[in-house]
Amino acid sequence: MSRRYVITFGCPDRIGIVAAIASFLAELGGTIVEAAYHTDQDTGWFFTRQEVAAESLAIGPDELRSRFAAVVAELGGDWQILDTDERRRVVILVSKEGHCLYDILGRVASGELDVDVPAVIGNHPDLAKITEAHGIPFHHVPFPREDKTSAFAEVARVVDAAAPHAIVLARFMQILPMRLCADWTGRALNIHHSFLPSFVGAKPYHQAYRRGVKLIGATCHYVTAELDAGPIIDQDVIRVGHGDSIPDMVRKGRDIEKVVLARGLRWHLENRILVHGNKTVVF
Amino acid sequence: MSRRYVITFGCPDRIGIVAAIASFLAELGGTIVEAAYHTDQDTGWFFTRQEVAAESLAIGPDELRSRFAAVVAELGGDWQILDTDERRRVVILVSKEGHCLYDILGRVASGELDVDVPAVIGNHPDLAKITEAHGIPFHHVPFPREDKTSAFAEVARVVDAAAPHAIVLARFMQILPMRLCADWTGRALNIHHSFLPSFVGAKPYHQAYRRGVKLIGATCHYVTAELDAGPIIDQDVIRVGHGDSIPDMVRKGRDIEKVVLARGLRWHLENRILVHGNKTVVF
Amino acid sequence: MSRRYVITFGCPDRIGIVAAIASFLAELGGTIVEAAYHTDQDTGWFFTRQEVAAESLAIGPDELRSRFAAVVAELGGDWQILDTDERRRVVILVSKEGHCLYDILGRVASGELDVDVPAVIGNHPDLAKITEAHGIPFHHVPFPREDKTSAFAEVARVVDAAAPHAIVLARFMQILPMRLCADWTGRALNIHHSFLPSFVGAKPYHQAYRRGVKLIGATCHYVTAELDAGPIIDQDVIRVGHGDSIPDMVRKGRDIEKVVLARGLRWHLENRILVHGNKTVVF
Amino acid sequence: MSRRYVITFGCPDRIGIVAAIASFLAELGGTIVEAAYHTDQDTGWFFTRQEVAAESLAIGPDELRSRFAAVVAELGGDWQILDTDERRRVVILVSKEGHCLYDILGRVASGELDVDVPAVIGNHPDLAKITEAHGIPFHHVPFPREDKTSAFAEVARVVDAAAPHAIVLARFMQILPMRLCADWTGRALNIHHSFLPSFVGAKPYHQAYRRGVKLIGATCHYVTAELDAGPIIDQDVIRVGHGDSIPDMVRKGRDIEKVVLARGLRWHLENRILVHGNKTVVF
Repeated sequence: MSRRYVITFGCPDRIGIVAAIASFLAELGGTIVEAAYHTDQDTGWFFTRQEVAAESLAIGPDELRSRFAAVVAELGGDWQILDTDERRRVVILVSKEGHCLYDILGRVASGELDVDVPAVIGNHPDLAKITEAHGIPFHHVPFPREDKTSAFAEVARVVDAAAPHAIVLARFMQILPMRLCADWTGRALNIHHSFLPSFVGAKPYHQAYRRGVKLIGATCHYVTAELDAGPIIDQDVIRVGHGDSIPDMVRKGRDIEKVVLARGLRWHLENRILVHGNKTVVF
Repeated sequence: MSRRYVITFGCPDRIGIVAAIASFLAELGGTIVEAAYHTDQDTGWFFTRQEVAAESLAIGPDELRSRFAAVVAELGGDWQILDTDERRRVVILVSKEGHCLYDILGRVASGELDVDVPAVIGNHPDLAKITEAHGIPFHHVPFPREDKTSAFAEVARVVDAAAPHAIVLARFMQILPMRLCADWTGRALNIHHSFLPSFVGAKPYHQAYRRGVKLIGATCHYVTAELDAGPIIDQDVIRVGHGDSIPDMVRKGRDIEKVVLARGLRWHLENRILVHGNKTVVF
Repeated sequence: MSRRYVITFGCPDRIGIVAAIASFLAELGGTIVEAAYHTDQDTGWFFTRQEVAAESLAIGPDELRSRFAAVVAELGGDWQILDTDERRRVVILVSKEGHCLYDILGRVASGELDVDVPAVIGNHPDLAKITEAHGIPFHHVPFPREDKTSAFAEVARVVDAAAPHAIVLARFMQILPMRLCADWTGRALNIHHSFLPSFVGAKPYHQAYRRGVKLIGATCHYVTAELDAGPIIDQDVIRVGHGDSIPDMVRKGRDIEKVVLARGLRWHLENRILVHGNKTVVF
Repeated sequence: MSRRYVITFGCPDRIGIVAAIASFLAELGGTIVEAAYHTDQDTGWFFTRQEVAAESLAIGPDELRSRFAAVVAELGGDWQILDTDERRRVVILVSKEGHCLYDILGRVASGELDVDVPAVIGNHPDLAKITEAHGIPFHHVPFPREDKTSAFAEVARVVDAAAPHAIVLARFMQILPMRLCADWTGRALNIHHSFLPSFVGAKPYHQAYRRGVKLIGATCHYVTAELDAGPIIDQDVIRVGHGDSIPDMVRKGRDIEKVVLARGLRWHLENRILVHGNKTVVF
């Protein structure tokens, strides 16, 4: 794909924002490849995401950033300009269940997901072999039952050394301490194996089985300090019936977990997700 | 459709149940049009539902019932034999929202749902006109804010006079008293406008909007004493996004509410649902 | 809902279109409630739809139209400005199958679809009663097997007298002559009971049954001279299995037909659909 | 999972079949873990599939087969008894697109799909590395543009040497010659990247894009001599819109292709699929 600059911007809504941004880009001769707008009626917050063809601009990304900053300075919001030529880095955290890891590695290997994966970290060694077969270093960080402080410190050390754009909890079965939730705000994505807010916490398929639901789900969300309560990025469901045992649900659920996680990760890396309070705008 | 006898039966699982029932029917020369079996592995409970062509049997439904009772007596379970020539009666309870009522009346009028509707009861008069246009008596039973005892007594009187096979709470916004839940066990179906167990109780679309979910749902379930916690019959979902306001969710949700309720009602009337504990087997 | 002006516009893509429109609206003080943009990369055609709060403008719809015309004159495209205060009129054509008609009438009666229905036309009289119960005139126009010219002339007379914004073929089982397809271009919506382009023409559920598909579908599309080949507006599917007979498919299919048609009709009436060649942009 | 015998049987329907089989199993003391029945009303053909717990029988699989043969001899149908303790072998044919292969290998590696994969064959070498990383031999068989006879002979040699229970065409972009279709009848599964019967043959996503459909699909079917026309095992769809380019459709489609293929393969290996004419019964 040709190089693009992805502008994301949010501010209190008022008349003239679109005109200001569109005029700014038109004056630069920028070709807008994709554009989306949304105003949250409850909070009066305006959001936009625009993809500009890099080749249509005479200036580079830094110059674009400084000029854009000047244009929106008085609007008082937050913005980011992503240059798609900058490689994106993803670190993946796993336990024993491999389906989400296999799936992401397959997408990376086939070029569908065009990112670097500098590290996979597991609190169990089970997934070392497949990771290393893809030429990716695997870090085994054992987690003791009692004090997990030093284990998390080691995880943080490996993650932070990679300075990743996304930290993916690909069925990582440890609850992040508040400190890491804070440090990784907006970068840590989790896949929860239920249709949240149903079945928060441990063993959601067991909970679903006991309740007798007729659909099971998966939810990709940003990690926050409150367990399974962060901003939801995407969800999906699959039908189950009285003939499905818990292992059947686990198996069927995997197929939506991996797809929902991959979708959320792609959107995150393409700066398609704007977080507002505890909700997401997905362009 | 030609006349059928629908046998439903559940008992503790053991070897020889299918053989006993199948041999019994084979000896009578019964043509089995549809058959389903299930054993719940947790509780060791066996379930079956069989549709037999009435014309293939030399005996009538009463004789079939008494002979079947003898066959399964020692198995110690519950059974029922439905004769599809007996007209089924459905009473519908509504408030102001008409989409589920319109939908059911349309299905009845077109012959898709081949039942009698001897009464529609509303705690508001709004849906009287459409009901009466279908030639069905509408009973307006106003509900005071405070003591609802006599209002519910009036509802019970109208319902019980019809001796219905199904009592459908088609967005009836009053919580049934425990007494009626008990009297109508296994016959009262509710449609809840969320993907249960998420968003129990009032204003589920408002709850869904606040949580920022990406799918909204509808659940048809049997009414029990605990609010929105009865055995689930069917569920479905529809996708929503950041652009959907609460009124958009309400509107989109209606399209799954009415379809899920109609599906549940059909299955109930065809004796396809076997309740076991707080779960359903749907054949 | 408060009054809005809905601007739809398409033209060959070039730099500065968004800036021109956004600046125009900003200068008028217009509050943009909803905005969407799309550029078709194959044909280089730009599309936009914008909802402006009427109360935010000092000028009325006619003045807005004449000023907007001046702004986009040099861009060389097509535009429309819909005033949501103008009542929309829908004429419905039916045969014997009533589920789509019942569904639309229910939506109109409940206020979900805020339109006038000046006429329902049927080539069979079956649906007269329910139509008239809603206070809507029903026109029975019998169709002879041989020469249908005068029957279609009568249909055209009733339709054109109403000057409708939408002509809905709600399971109308007659093929429109080319003349009417041309006269009603962009206003006539059909619901076809298959997942087009599979199973064009008569008895699609029979075709689906014979092919042994595992999902059946419904397609809402604009009517064009070529049968079932017009621009697709929306589609949906529902799962079927080996146990489903043709009547089961017919019954299950109805539930998606009516929902897909209602969705397409709503989008059409809200000017959300921009037709481009034989495809649709749905904002 | 504990050892099971899976009985599949089909014959002309008549009274007493279920009684005969059920009595036979009851006399042996067999515990039926799962049972399903279906009668095709058009052809009058009866189908059943039963899973019996091996430990509940005093006899082994060969004895079970010979006794079962005697019981059903006079019914005149076809039957099979699968012993789940016999390892199942799957050979996979690929070209360049790896998503289905990655997905199957991931399921095998994680134990979800408990089979042996003695060979992967590719007409391009691209997927050799990932295959060999899983410890599976990769056979590169180049296909010339003109005469493909010897290439197919080599493929057949490798496949037949493995005597596989399933031959999976995991986006293998060569059309099997009639001879191989015949030799592999009922064992060769293909994944076609459209919602069949729409978009048969080459480049279905391009065809879908041109037609402007709003859902794209994937179909798993048995391979027969007529291209993309074999008995359908499973299908699924995913929503697309005007903003989706052909590459977007290709990417979104992969997620359903791999899931539908994996589902079909699992059902095939568990003897859940009974082919009847050009249709499947999936228990």
